[in-house]
Amino acid sequence: MRKTFPIIATLATVAAMPALAQDAPVDAAPAVSADVAYIFNTLLFLIGGFLVMWMAAGFAMLEAGLVRSKNVTTQLFKNVSLFAIAGIMYWLIGYNLMYPGEWTMPGVIGEIFSPKGIDAVGSGVADDGYSAGSDFFFQLMFCATTASIVSGTLAERVKLWPFMIFTVILTGVIYPIEASWQWGGGFLSEMGFSDFAGSTLVHATGGFAALAGAILLGARTGKYRADGRMQPMPGSNLALATLGTFILWLGWFGFNGASQLAIGSVNDAADVSRIFVNTNMAASAGAIAAVITTQLLYGKIDLTMVLNGALAGLVSITAEPLTPSIFASLLIGGVGGAIAVFVVPMLDKMKIDDVVGAIPVHLVAGVWGTIIVPATNPDTSFVTQIIGVVAIGGFTFIVSFIIWSILKATTGIRVDKEAEITGLDIAEMGMEAYPDFVQAK
Amino acid sequence: MRKTFPIIATLATVAAMPALAQDAPVDAAPAVSADVAYIFNTLLFLIGGFLVMWMAAGFAMLEAGLVRSKNVTTQLFKNVSLFAIAGIMYWLIGYNLMYPGEWTMPGVIGEIFSPKGIDAVGSGVADDGYSAGSDFFFQLMFCATTASIVSGTLAERVKLWPFMIFTVILTGVIYPIEASWQWGGGFLSEMGFSDFAGSTLVHATGGFAALAGAILLGARTGKYRADGRMQPMPGSNLALATLGTFILWLGWFGFNGASQLAIGSVNDAADVSRIFVNTNMAASAGAIAAVITTQLLYGKIDLTMVLNGALAGLVSITAEPLTPSIFASLLIGGVGGAIAVFVVPMLDKMKIDDVVGAIPVHLVAGVWGTIIVPATNPDTSFVTQIIGVVAIGGFTFIVSFIIWSILKATTGIRVDKEAEITGLDIAEMGMEAYPDFVQAK
Amino acid sequence: MRKTFPIIATLATVAAMPALAQDAPVDAAPAVSADVAYIFNTLLFLIGGFLVMWMAAGFAMLEAGLVRSKNVTTQLFKNVSLFAIAGIMYWLIGYNLMYPGEWTMPGVIGEIFSPKGIDAVGSGVADDGYSAGSDFFFQLMFCATTASIVSGTLAERVKLWPFMIFTVILTGVIYPIEASWQWGGGFLSEMGFSDFAGSTLVHATGGFAALAGAILLGARTGKYRADGRMQPMPGSNLALATLGTFILWLGWFGFNGASQLAIGSVNDAADVSRIFVNTNMAASAGAIAAVITTQLLYGKIDLTMVLNGALAGLVSITAEPLTPSIFASLLIGGVGGAIAVFVVPMLDKMKIDDVVGAIPVHLVAGVWGTIIVPATNPDTSFVTQIIGVVAIGGFTFIVSFIIWSILKATTGIRVDKEAEITGLDIAEMGMEAYPDFVQAK
Repeated sequence: MRKTFPIIATLATVAAMPALAQDAPVDAAPAVSADVAYIFNTLLFLIGGFLVMWMAAGFAMLEAGLVRSKNVTTQLFKNVSLFAIAGIMYWLIGYNLMYPGEWTMPGVIGEIFSPKGIDAVGSGVADDGYSAGSDFFFQLMFCATTASIVSGTLAERVKLWPFMIFTVILTGVIYPIEASWQWGGGFLSEMGFSDFAGSTLVHATGGFAALAGAILLGARTGKYRADGRMQPMPGSNLALATLGTFILWLGWFGFNGASQLAIGSVNDAADVSRIFVNTNMAASAGAIAAVITTQLLYGKIDLTMVLNGALAGLVSITAEPLTPSIFASLLIGGVGGAIAVFVVPMLDKMKIDDVVGAIPVHLVAGVWGTIIVPATNPDTSFVTQIIGVVAIGGFTFIVSFIIWSILKATTGIRVDKEAEITGLDIAEMGMEAYPDFVQAK
Repeated sequence: MRKTFPIIATLATVAAMPALAQDAPVDAAPAVSADVAYIFNTLLFLIGGFLVMWMAAGFAMLEAGLVRSKNVTTQLFKNVSLFAIAGIMYWLIGYNLMYPGEWTMPGVIGEIFSPKGIDAVGSGVADDGYSAGSDFFFQLMFCATTASIVSGTLAERVKLWPFMIFTVILTGVIYPIEASWQWGGGFLSEMGFSDFAGSTLVHATGGFAALAGAILLGARTGKYRADGRMQPMPGSNLALATLGTFILWLGWFGFNGASQLAIGSVNDAADVSRIFVNTNMAASAGAIAAVITTQLLYGKIDLTMVLNGALAGLVSITAEPLTPSIFASLLIGGVGGAIAVFVVPMLDKMKIDDVVGAIPVHLVAGVWGTIIVPATNPDTSFVTQIIGVVAIGGFTFIVSFIIWSILKATTGIRVDKEAEITGLDIAEMGMEAYPDFVQAK
Repeated sequence: MRKTFPIIATLATVAAMPALAQDAPVDAAPAVSADVAYIFNTLLFLIGGFLVMWMAAGFAMLEAGLVRSKNVTTQLFKNVSLFAIAGIMYWLIGYNLMYPGEWTMPGVIGEIFSPKGIDAVGSGVADDGYSAGSDFFFQLMFCATTASIVSGTLAERVKLWPFMIFTVILTGVIYPIEASWQWGGGFLSEMGFSDFAGSTLVHATGGFAALAGAILLGARTGKYRADGRMQPMPGSNLALATLGTFILWLGWFGFNGASQLAIGSVNDAADVSRIFVNTNMAASAGAIAAVITTQLLYGKIDLTMVLNGALAGLVSITAEPLTPSIFASLLIGGVGGAIAVFVVPMLDKMKIDDVVGAIPVHLVAGVWGTIIVPATNPDTSFVTQIIGVVAIGGFTFIVSFIIWSILKATTGIRVDKEAEITGLDIAEMGMEAYPDFVQAK
């Protein structure tokens, strides 16, 4: 609402102030003191952090809506437990692994593993720029997001405990190591690789880990029929899937916006605003691109594709939500949304069964977003971007493939066929998600 | 939590500061520098903006819960796509149309239409009072809200693509034009019309656009029976409808609170707080008014009426959430909630079929809220308020009626009877929302 | 995201500022002026407040998901109406009762009861430290939370209107009185009792009020069978229950974080961050503790127990989320989660039928969290903590028991057996939550 009067009144108040900071002589108090900047930056991390935390609910709803009703309880459980596991593992190992330079030995009995996670009570240091705890909180949520991406692809046939063991390793080791290469000041960062909020470091990483699992796990029984056609296995609750998408869309403002890492200056505040606008535009464009492409390709609009289109738009803009113009964001997100639509049948052709479309959305659109960065950010190069994607993708895929292989050879990673047909909710958890509704067939 | 000690400690710290700004001589640094005020105001827009964005999910859930299960996928799709359309159209045309004085020609290749939407990277200007991007983001969400209101009324029989075309025009042209009359500094603003956060500019506008569509579209098949009685068509998922209402209630704190447009001074912060309190009270009173009126009128409480009562309370206070006392907010919201209950059967008597009750809630309560403003705000007059409502309502209704008529004469706006009986999900989208649950009948 | 460059740039900007506040001579402007601190503190209350408001939706979804489908509409209604009732009663009576020293007589016609709730328009006072309205808004949400806890336990058999009358008394009188003993500066506060954000003042209080009701109400028909075994009555929608848990988890950052009551200094900002980190860790640990204990006890993981484990972890850390280390938070939350798992069968043994597990989660874990405070906070003592729990628990239980008894003797508090078997949705409200889905049996 630009209501003229209040704004004028506000500006008038400001104008009436005796000496505006920017008019003040050089040795006056700064316009934004270090203390105030610290509080603003900390607030940004906390608000951004709780928005990204909320994305865990978004993934849970999206995935619970896209699996069949007989596997909903299990999918919900996996999403809750992976978030809890990330919360513990990233503290226990991950954070220190990601920022190795900041690893210090535990100083006090009772605080065993995480000397850096938070400041002592009542002891913020303005020169730090933000509180350690707010940074830890925000970073943790990115680690958890990576894990959330994996659970959807492997739904409806992966065994519970092996999935949880993989999550422990992903959040405690795999994510922190590859993220340290860039955000921990590692070799990719030194090469000039750029991935603002994690199209590759978070989203493609989750996608590569999921892809490795999906290959080793195989498709759901009956998905790819002997006659070469595909058996549709529609999601059981598109209202939940849509809710999940809206939650993710909302959370992404924290994901991208707070990745500016600072809002303690006028320029940073303007940049965070740019990021919000571009993020929303990329999502809108991704959704509309999916509307148009599914209408053209299939003669009707596919809601789940539209949801994935919006998400692919969001993933695409995540590598660089700051430098694009709004129009460039529309293009980046729109192409991302279209890519997601086209990749789905390609995966099916390869018989890679990705229940919720996490590979098209997070892996492929994530790679697209990362590689297109130099189109709007002159400080980057296509070569470096590709090197970064290959390094992170290769590392994540190979390590994940090894872990999944070890799990497959030991505990097994797939439920038996009978359990799969019955549904994991009864077979693995003994608890239906919707016991009162009569189920079709 | 007013825990005595921490607060005292905080105040003590403040008190111990060497020179409090308000005690300082006139030529000292201001208590809130222009830079800090800029960051606060920008934060207000961003937080308010993401809360209003979240309302899109609220409308989606509310409407998906109130339609029959055979139309849920379509309703979900409409809510996602209208939000995406608003995100593009408001940027492409709407924003420049709403603030014509700020229209400038595109300066760079690649940034075709929206020169004003965002500041260049790293270039906020403290004297602007807030970042352009945060303002654009916040304004956009109001445009999207207007579109969300329309989809519910027309549910269960409107054709997909004509609905989307109407949304393009509503978000790109209709809303921006009428909103410019007030918030763009137009004639209503000059007359002294007052609509703080948009009871009329947003809510009644959405309601009038919906009303025009509902009249031309006609009622759902079977709704008004030959014997003069009404066929109940209960919503398929009241849990979703309730969730949607809570989401809207939450989002409204951003809607009304951030419409203060500034939180960079002590007075503005106190005013935003007033708005939060009044907004919550009006919603509470609207809900309770609906509890009491449905109990008295029908002998039992009607949950969907209570949800609509809360929303009507929110719409009612939106025209002036600042000047009323808490008690006045209770009265304004309570009357709004009761109005919603009474208008529903009146619409049915006129055979205007409003699936979710958007006309009572957004149009009628919106008009009520706008007209009652002078009761608490002495700077306004009843005459001017009525002129504003008539001007905006008349314009929106007539233009919408024309657009819907053109669509009706060309593409058609209503699905055929068979499709309506089958349900739009199968007929229009080929995808059920709840394929695993056996449907009644 | 710790991207090196932006942060360095920010810090460089700060470093380049002519005179950092902390280096400035004592009589320079303070690093954070009283005005800026006021705005920050007010923002903290508003953000925290809307997050806690969102918890009302969390309780609604959790409880709607855990009751059988025939009672969902009623459960939804109770959650909406109790929030509305709290919004009115806390203003009408509660707030003034909770802070008796601040009770003043109404000054103007038309503002009957709440002289203290909000500042006059445009009249914040920097020396207050925060705006009165933001404080009122935040406090109100705690009162509403207390009421939300009760509705779950008594689900599926309590009569609507008696429940609402109890809610009126709980939010208008019981909660404000016991809360005033601590947060209103009463005798517990003077004794040195400590309950940072309300493990006992809010959560155990809600639990004790629910326990009194559950005892007088009796178990659901058929729950405890004649043969001594228990009839499972599984929740109808675990997706909603999981959503509700995620909502509560998110809202808890506002609940605990904003209970710091200030973020207008570097130290407060660091402390709020600590609280966010500890809160998340306690929830994670509670969830994982429930995973492990249910796996060990029952040979399979129980999703609803895991949800309750996370919530019990959150309740446990609420009494003291600031002083524990992250590791201590893990222990406190983990024990809380395990407690919840163990208490459920104990209650069943006593034939206390708590439909959603609110007593283990809010009462028992709340008491645990309160009593363990001295383990990390040296300013407290176990004796005082126990006295506080006994005083608040005893008062709440006894008064609630009396009120429920009076209601039982007059209006009755339980629906008749036929209504219970039919389901409250048809019997009490005449409206099914899921009318389109065919119900099992």
